[in-house]
Amino acid sequence: MRLLFVHSDHLEFEAREEAGPDDLAETEGVPMEGRMEECVTAFVSVESDDEADLDGVVANATDELRDVTGQLNTNRVVLYPYAHLSDDLASPDAAKAVMRDLESELEGEGYEVLRAPFGWYKAFEVACKGHPLSELSRHVSAHRDEAGGAAGAGDGEGEPDREPS
Amino acid sequence: MRLLFVHSDHLEFEAREEAGPDDLAETEGVPMEGRMEECVTAFVSVESDDEADLDGVVANATDELRDVTGQLNTNRVVLYPYAHLSDDLASPDAAKAVMRDLESELEGEGYEVLRAPFGWYKAFEVACKGHPLSELSRHVSAHRDEAGGAAGAGDGEGEPDREPS
Ligand SMILES: [Mg+2]
Repeated sequence: MRLLFVHSDHLEFEAREEAGPDDLAETEGVPMEGRMEECVTAFVSVESDDEADLDGVVANATDELRDVTGQLNTNRVVLYPYAHLSDDLASPDAAKAVMRDLESELEGEGYEVLRAPFGWYKAFEVACKGHPLSELSRHVSAHRDEAGGAAGAGDGEGEPDREPS
Repeated sequence: MRLLFVHSDHLEFEAREEAGPDDLAETEGVPMEGRMEECVTAFVSVESDDEADLDGVVANATDELRDVTGQLNTNRVVLYPYAHLSDDLASPDAAKAVMRDLESELEGEGYEVLRAPFGWYKAFEVACKGHPLSELSRHVSAHRDEAGGAAGAGDGEGEPDREPS
């Protein structure tokens, strides 16, 4: 999974047109438009490797989100499916399952979550704050770091953040 | 080079803080803030492989931009350096040279170009239109397709556009 976190003044979206074949687009359990203020927008590409252990990937992505939202002192998260962060995408069914499970995990921990629907062409507007931690990218796999200590430590799972430019 | 094109109602940015060591941040020949309406925003990651032939990469990226702006019927382009599209970035000097040369090429062909500075933490806001061609990603290399016919044909250099989500 590839994640791009953007600390946002706001994110808003509106689903415009279904993408791909018949049953690709999510239509149940997710809003067709939405807006959130003062949040972390998580752009998410679920990758084919993730299909070996979807639950593990969800757990590790939740750790990353816990880490990032802790640093940024917010509990407001937009989950935004985004195919353009990877060349090697998971199947649509796997991607939808991961997005739904991530939402459930975060809501279960008390986060306020806005999830954008998978499989739609969407209009969106995002405003990035521009401070040094306002854009962070991470690579998450299902693999759990054996040396990492307690589960849920939420640190060091991802790649180092890359240089801004 | 990785390119993400977003057909935008607007893009605006403001440089906030220099990133990295002393001479990384561009300060000459590029505005510290700007806004463009009704444009293609090109988020650009220059990659280490590109360093073998920067001129070739600039030529092929210009072909891609000509192709995309032709499809979208605009001559307004934002060039926005963006490290989060690749794991294998070029050196800052190479990246800056490519961004400057891309700007010159496009301006020489009559495009209206707004280029954001490299090496800064920047606040930005982008509004994506949301139609089926409003987000396109491409991989551009210096390699010219020998079977591609005349230089500048501007077609088929990139990867197929990926599925939206
Ligand atoms: Mg200029």
